[in-house]
Amino acid sequence: MSTGDIALVPDWIVPVHPRGEVLSHHALVMHGQRISAVLPREELDQTYPGVELVRLPGQVLLPGLINAHAHSAMSLLRGLADDLPLMRWLEDHIWPAEQACVGAEYVRAGTELAVAEMLLGGTTCFNDNYFFPDVAAATAARAGMRAVVGLPLISVPTAWATTEDEYFARGLAVHQDLKGEALVSTAFAPHAPYTVSDAAFRRIRELAEELDIPVHLHLLETAGEIDSSHQQYRLHPIDRLEKLGLFNDRLLAVHMTQLDDRDMDRVARAGVHVLHCPASNLKLASGICPVAGLVDRGVNVCVGTDGAASNNTLDMFAEMRLAALLAKGASGNPEAVPAEQALEMATINAARALGLEERIGTLEAGKQADLIAVSLDRIETLPVHHVISQLVYATGRHQVSQVWVAGRQLVRDGQALSLDIDRIKSETAIWQRRLERIDRQAARGA
Amino acid sequence: MSTGDIALVPDWIVPVHPRGEVLSHHALVMHGQRISAVLPREELDQTYPGVELVRLPGQVLLPGLINAHAHSAMSLLRGLADDLPLMRWLEDHIWPAEQACVGAEYVRAGTELAVAEMLLGGTTCFNDNYFFPDVAAATAARAGMRAVVGLPLISVPTAWATTEDEYFARGLAVHQDLKGEALVSTAFAPHAPYTVSDAAFRRIRELAEELDIPVHLHLLETAGEIDSSHQQYRLHPIDRLEKLGLFNDRLLAVHMTQLDDRDMDRVARAGVHVLHCPASNLKLASGICPVAGLVDRGVNVCVGTDGAASNNTLDMFAEMRLAALLAKGASGNPEAVPAEQALEMATINAARALGLEERIGTLEAGKQADLIAVSLDRIETLPVHHVISQLVYATGRHQVSQVWVAGRQLVRDGQALSLDIDRIKSETAIWQRRLERIDRQAARGA
Repeated sequence: MSTGDIALVPDWIVPVHPRGEVLSHHALVMHGQRISAVLPREELDQTYPGVELVRLPGQVLLPGLINAHAHSAMSLLRGLADDLPLMRWLEDHIWPAEQACVGAEYVRAGTELAVAEMLLGGTTCFNDNYFFPDVAAATAARAGMRAVVGLPLISVPTAWATTEDEYFARGLAVHQDLKGEALVSTAFAPHAPYTVSDAAFRRIRELAEELDIPVHLHLLETAGEIDSSHQQYRLHPIDRLEKLGLFNDRLLAVHMTQLDDRDMDRVARAGVHVLHCPASNLKLASGICPVAGLVDRGVNVCVGTDGAASNNTLDMFAEMRLAALLAKGASGNPEAVPAEQALEMATINAARALGLEERIGTLEAGKQADLIAVSLDRIETLPVHHVISQLVYATGRHQVSQVWVAGRQLVRDGQALSLDIDRIKSETAIWQRRLERIDRQAARGA
Repeated sequence: MSTGDIALVPDWIVPVHPRGEVLSHHALVMHGQRISAVLPREELDQTYPGVELVRLPGQVLLPGLINAHAHSAMSLLRGLADDLPLMRWLEDHIWPAEQACVGAEYVRAGTELAVAEMLLGGTTCFNDNYFFPDVAAATAARAGMRAVVGLPLISVPTAWATTEDEYFARGLAVHQDLKGEALVSTAFAPHAPYTVSDAAFRRIRELAEELDIPVHLHLLETAGEIDSSHQQYRLHPIDRLEKLGLFNDRLLAVHMTQLDDRDMDRVARAGVHVLHCPASNLKLASGICPVAGLVDRGVNVCVGTDGAASNNTLDMFAEMRLAALLAKGASGNPEAVPAEQALEMATINAARALGLEERIGTLEAGKQADLIAVSLDRIETLPVHHVISQLVYATGRHQVSQVWVAGRQLVRDGQALSLDIDRIKSETAIWQRRLERIDRQAARGA
């Protein structure tokens, strides 16, 4: 199948570029891993005689969604503890569970659960941030999913590494090992300003430039972070990062809920990318990222789910919708982040942040064939007055019917082709029992 | 089937009352329209020998969700116009479409589309607010769905009525006609303080008391509403309603985004019920209802979707989740509206507001068998550490597997039993074409 041309013929194609375009009576032709053409249906037979046709009635074809910020393996903690203040949530539940469980096997099982959830829900690429990125990378690649894995750096010992030097050594080894990997690349993932030293940040800056990879950092998630930075460094976190040479267009800043007008100007000037996680920010009551103000200044804003321990889904349709709704409510402007822009945040903007905009994020000839088909011919998305509005405001991830990554079909008619769903479910059940035991023990100890 | 006892045996039962309870190894027994018992599985055979067993493996049984505020027929306008300021949205799109289309046939088709969407998504009762409530009532009853239909009152002529007197006469006739109807009851539905006269409000107060029905009113949706009330009546809308004798526990106040501490105290003291529509309020940038503050004061808060023209779904799982998330984000308190409370807002609180708390809203012996089963045995809701957390934060409406209203099964394995989905789809397609023509004409005229 991968040697010939395949023409997908849906009811609509939403290429994302140009903005707002909805093509009817068009086809998308794939060859191998790539998109060869998006062309009018009536030109298809002449331009690609004998092409294999895949009809997708009632469906819309669009780029696969890109989850700009995930902690995939944390899916095993989904719903373990909710509705708690941040520190009680972390200290009494999340950290004890992680201390007891995190290792290669845990990360493999958790990432596989997340990959299954994301692929079935129309996400074709994720920007991950967790320990054992080698395992996450292998898990994504095995499933045929695209990923950027973070090379973690944090000032406390974990199962992944104990000293700063070890974090760097292991991270660099992972980067080296993934060099030949088509679907997976790397980013540096220093945890947050309050858990990473100046020395480590400096080393990251040098190495990120040398390796030409992004720096994926939790930044300004809560107000407390600014206070603690002033106390420890006598600097606002943005000033500190600027001083360390990290506040630039290589930086992928996650959360960013604590920004005033001047901060937003600086973000825009520096070309910093913002990875917006609206569900997680609301759930933990961290604050609200001023997306409308950032977009007005030309900042590249992307959307991410965060981990399933604080969301509790990896549902990019829900996240895209929430980003569009919350931007309006928070800014008081019903025209802020229209549907077309929300869709860009979940596709091409994320590709741009990850340095992958030449390869993915839109449906254009020459790009990788990372694409999804969504059935709009369902009660919940009828009538179809405006396709993109339906995709952002009304579509649920259960309407994702087909998924391809690099031309390989991974979901067909809602069924995963590259994953053993039953095995993932039984492994998840085993981890569930183990984690519940640990959580009960932690509660007794607390 | 309706003459014998039926025992449903799911993995879990969430009765909603008492708060937070999750029963394992239990069964729910129905007889005719009612719930006979919720009892331990091992007592089932002895107490109900020979009972018909319906096993629901991997599923959780809970009360059907209640959509506290809907404009069902507006589903035909879903996505017709989005991302616009309120007045351009109304004047250039929604009103021209309504003026051209609203009538019995439009309301029948639109309500049927909405009923199908709601039932398939686990909503078993809705509080409707639109013209031709007789048609909406008949449509719901025909599908076997429970509803409260609003008797509309607005100071402008519409296809439903032209004068205040006619609105009252037609409304009272609908109320009279529905007296024998088991599934459908009525409420007064004066549109909003800025579109209803003092005289009409006074008449509504008298009649609502006489008929013992609620008053369903859009209130404090936007800041502009307060200004216009001061200009026209020299009173804050709450003061005006209080003066007119309407600010009491019969009032179902929709939206309520413009409340300060003193207003919240008054809402609590008066026993006014608040119908919270978070998605619509965010999308139209109306403001944010201070749910955490209301709940702290003991106010009965319910959740509604509003119409599909401003949401754009009638998805009560999404709305319940958003209510839980937004309350935390808006109050800065991650403990605000925990999952158990969000579930109450979508079930028993709405039953209470509608005066139906003796009949629906929880799973208790003697109540009507309005209940749904949700499959949690799917990748997106595994592991199941906490059932109610999964229902509120992770479950999508596509996981609704079974739906019963008054003991009658309306959805089986995700398929509607009482509705012809194909016919609804084709009728919706016809309305889609008609509405698009009208919208194009209105655009040319504007």
